Amino acid sequence: MKVAIYHRPKSEDAYAYDKDTIHIRLRTRKDDAHEVMLIYGDPYDWAGNEWVTAKKTMTQAGADGEYDYWFVEVKPPYHRLRYGFEIKAKDETIYYGESGFCDTPAKDISDYFCFPFMNQADLFTPPEWVKETIWYQIFPERFANGDHSRDPENTLAWGSAPPTATNYFGGDLQGIVDHLDYLQKLGINGIYLTPIFKAFSNHKYDTIDYLKVDPQFGDETTLKLLVDECHKRGIRVMLDAVFNHAGLYFPPFQDVLKHQQESEYRDWFHIRQFPVRAEEPPNYDTFAFTPLMPKLNTANEAVKDYLLNVATYWIKEFDIDGWRLDVANEVDHAFWREFRNRVKALKPDLYILGEIWHNAYPWLQGDQFDGVMNYPLTDAIFDFVQHGKSATTFQYAVTKHLYSYPKLVNEVQFNLLGSHDTPRILTVSGGNKKLVKLSYLLLFSFPGSPCIYYGDEIGMAGENDPGCRACMVWEEDQQDQELFQFLQKLIKIRKTHQAMGTYNTLKFYDSGTEDVLLYSTSAGGELLLFAVNRSKQEATVKLPDSLKSLAFVDVICESPLQSEELHVEGECFLFLHSVDANKCGQVDK
Amino acid sequence: MKVAIYHRPKSEDAYAYDKDTIHIRLRTRKDDAHEVMLIYGDPYDWAGNEWVTAKKTMTQAGADGEYDYWFVEVKPPYHRLRYGFEIKAKDETIYYGESGFCDTPAKDISDYFCFPFMNQADLFTPPEWVKETIWYQIFPERFANGDHSRDPENTLAWGSAPPTATNYFGGDLQGIVDHLDYLQKLGINGIYLTPIFKAFSNHKYDTIDYLKVDPQFGDETTLKLLVDECHKRGIRVMLDAVFNHAGLYFPPFQDVLKHQQESEYRDWFHIRQFPVRAEEPPNYDTFAFTPLMPKLNTANEAVKDYLLNVATYWIKEFDIDGWRLDVANEVDHAFWREFRNRVKALKPDLYILGEIWHNAYPWLQGDQFDGVMNYPLTDAIFDFVQHGKSATTFQYAVTKHLYSYPKLVNEVQFNLLGSHDTPRILTVSGGNKKLVKLSYLLLFSFPGSPCIYYGDEIGMAGENDPGCRACMVWEEDQQDQELFQFLQKLIKIRKTHQAMGTYNTLKFYDSGTEDVLLYSTSAGGELLLFAVNRSKQEATVKLPDSLKSLAFVDVICESPLQSEELHVEGECFLFLHSVDANKCGQVDK
Repeated sequence: MKVAIYHRPKSEDAYAYDKDTIHIRLRTRKDDAHEVMLIYGDPYDWAGNEWVTAKKTMTQAGADGEYDYWFVEVKPPYHRLRYGFEIKAKDETIYYGESGFCDTPAKDISDYFCFPFMNQADLFTPPEWVKETIWYQIFPERFANGDHSRDPENTLAWGSAPPTATNYFGGDLQGIVDHLDYLQKLGINGIYLTPIFKAFSNHKYDTIDYLKVDPQFGDETTLKLLVDECHKRGIRVMLDAVFNHAGLYFPPFQDVLKHQQESEYRDWFHIRQFPVRAEEPPNYDTFAFTPLMPKLNTANEAVKDYLLNVATYWIKEFDIDGWRLDVANEVDHAFWREFRNRVKALKPDLYILGEIWHNAYPWLQGDQFDGVMNYPLTDAIFDFVQHGKSATTFQYAVTKHLYSYPKLVNEVQFNLLGSHDTPRILTVSGGNKKLVKLSYLLLFSFPGSPCIYYGDEIGMAGENDPGCRACMVWEEDQQDQELFQFLQKLIKIRKTHQAMGTYNTLKFYDSGTEDVLLYSTSAGGELLLFAVNRSKQEATVKLPDSLKSLAFVDVICESPLQSEELHVEGECFLFLHSVDANKCGQVDK
Repeated sequence: MKVAIYHRPKSEDAYAYDKDTIHIRLRTRKDDAHEVMLIYGDPYDWAGNEWVTAKKTMTQAGADGEYDYWFVEVKPPYHRLRYGFEIKAKDETIYYGESGFCDTPAKDISDYFCFPFMNQADLFTPPEWVKETIWYQIFPERFANGDHSRDPENTLAWGSAPPTATNYFGGDLQGIVDHLDYLQKLGINGIYLTPIFKAFSNHKYDTIDYLKVDPQFGDETTLKLLVDECHKRGIRVMLDAVFNHAGLYFPPFQDVLKHQQESEYRDWFHIRQFPVRAEEPPNYDTFAFTPLMPKLNTANEAVKDYLLNVATYWIKEFDIDGWRLDVANEVDHAFWREFRNRVKALKPDLYILGEIWHNAYPWLQGDQFDGVMNYPLTDAIFDFVQHGKSATTFQYAVTKHLYSYPKLVNEVQFNLLGSHDTPRILTVSGGNKKLVKLSYLLLFSFPGSPCIYYGDEIGMAGENDPGCRACMVWEEDQQDQELFQFLQKLIKIRKTHQAMGTYNTLKFYDSGTEDVLLYSTSAGGELLLFAVNRSKQEATVKLPDSLKSLAFVDVICESPLQSEELHVEGECFLFLHSVDANKCGQVDK
């Protein structure tokens, strides 16, 4: 039993959830333990030679293929805590603390784990509004052309050709302003724009001037108009900060190419060898191996000042609400710490979103980002809905993932089914719209803030870059109106059901088949039950015993559930809610 | 096998050891795996659709009761790494990466762990000189009285009474200056002074003025003299920073007591309730529950400025070499990050030592401290030498401990057998000097920089505070000269044998008895072998097979080893070295 037990102090296993509350988690081998208690006390609270402790039962709150995850919260009156675990299995009871395992409760306080002090300065407080936000991601060159006077040379007629890495259709900020009514109709309340600063390419990830709106997209007035109009409508605006690397035509890099060792900017980059040449293979550090994207030396004070000034400039002057940080994992932690300090000093509820595809805990301890682009959730959804992996696989992957971050991070993760860097969801689904809907239902029901990639809501298809960057279809007869209405409804439901999304407690049930994912979320006295059937065949699922005493109503068709059997059509779902869950004690267990 | 396997990216399991080298560790269940390979590559290095990887064998570098610890280092040419593990057991080979376990090597790069970029700004570089330092801790009020004009009222004659929490003997900085020859003779090259700033008590942990040398101890001139004289002798000086709390008589706190809500200092502390009263129980946050030590609000900008100014003042004006941080674990991480930035900007090789008794990894990631007071090693030594626990217990505890920090931290830990906060080593040893010697041998042979608590080198005894704070004995006939000479010799050996202490590779062997600890350390072509017998009976230990081909010389008596049997007297040790270890391939394996 011992070898599988794991707890790490001051981590995703033990963190301050708010100024008074510590969350404690413990991992045990699956089905090993039947009861776990937290033994805890204030480190300075002694009765003579005896340290004063209390006990509290932990809840088995999740499980994956290998482990059970136990959870409890405590509110130490003096904000200090030492603690250990009493773990009861069939044949033995063991005690676990920092010094290891014992057969009896440790006497020495140094054998216990320590949470020395809940300092407010270290409290991780991601912005509350993100929990209520449904994002819409826009790739500006391809969303809408609202100002033909800004069209680059050789701009093609809107939608007249497939997207390529080098063609232009004239999308711009005015085009977004022009369609805010459309976005409002959809119901989203956050926009994430891929880069809009002056750059060379159509994707603008190769910045030339970080302090200027790309003239193809508009100018400072257009951006101001866009942000103002969004804010009037209750829509937040997040911009993309490409601080890992600049573009080849970034003047400081051009200066290095020209003046080589003599350039005053020679230390702005990571030059491996002089003379520097912008050709393959580059003799300077770059993003991946592309000479077009020289990596910035963010340890250099001048570079740091420059970029931090960029970060604050767009907040101060344009009141933006979030920064999405491109290739955030390859920039030094020290830089991001200063970045957080600077932007949060200016706007404490600014959302800092890192682009990190792998485990991002080292960036999510409260000193760097608020959340990351949650691709592991995307993968879990695709594995179940589109790739035929089992419901159990989904449950295990999602549970493992949720327990790898503090709850307060999970609540503000940026959840997505696709982006400018992936194939579109309809394409991933092989053109099967039913599977698209199932995917969105999953996305909207899990903790975090969901994002719709422009055009996905009207059934656009597209392979990975450049395929996923086609022009938005604005002809209504070519838009999938039914899919649009489905998403409209889902957004509305998400906004009106607290238990959907961020504030939920999540529970998985055995549906009797690996084709059907059966789970509930709950909060504030409401319980939502989801049955997601990804097979073509209708499935019949029994209501879990623990929920039988509740009265359920179908959220979509608003009719009461009449039976204890749930009939779920092929490639379809049931979505029920019960408002008397609190009475029955089903909520937040 | 799977449930025990553990690896955590960007942690003590995966860190940059220097600008080009990443250390990777993996934990498996004891005796489960017989071979582990690292599979790794640059995340952007693809041959068509195939990610290009290499393989490298990991070494089984340590073991404790539950786990084996595997180790390998890699030098990624572009400072980027993705990696996973191939783990071979008797009946199966499994593959382990960020997404979990597979039976075949994962195809998808996202299934691998990630070390995105080795940024120099994040490189953890503790000061090199600490590795070569043997510390001497002084409690100034009790070391030597060099200036009677500064004696506080009611000062007692030196050593005329047992130490109490409130009596004074007039120890001062001049007293230390006067005895630098003594310290040089002993051989130490670092002094750690408990607090010397103006305070109320004899221990000075209740600061009144952080910018003033306590007049009982001297003045700024005396301190300057002390530091200069030390530096002339190659001795570094570390002071004690008490930033968690101030003293009751700290003027800002007195101001709050006087003016209550109206005080401009009301936010310098954590006031729970007005009116504030300095009585038990305190209605403000304190160290432990003592009203005498009000906790400072280090999140308050004014307090932060004040304390950071203190931290830099003593470096700028007096050129001190280290700060030991009192109750460091209860101060916020954000404060320590700024602290590190500020002091390292001024003096990059300043040693930052935190007082943390429990696992301190959250403070040892490169952004806060260089090392901590290594009490867990103290405990392991006592458990074996003084408390009768087995050699195996020692091996397991030390191995687990070493693998809970990066190697670069272990190399600069502050190792000690006692301090002003513990009973003295002779007392812990029940007056048995032989056990004291064994303890020092262990302390000096392990990674980290060892410290001698004043007076322990001449056989002073003393129970915990106040017993351990007695006046230093200066009458030579009352000093244990033999113990002094033993330590003198040990210090000399440590300085001349690279494999002793910091740079070693550590290996434990089965001695055939739990009373004898048998281990080797190696570095730079030399191998040291230690056999430490803590029982009263002589023990005979066989030379480990793997070392039989080496020629050994006894380090203490300088005679060659004649036999493959090691005879170790009761409560004594053998300490051998072999200089031809490199030839035989025994070193650094």
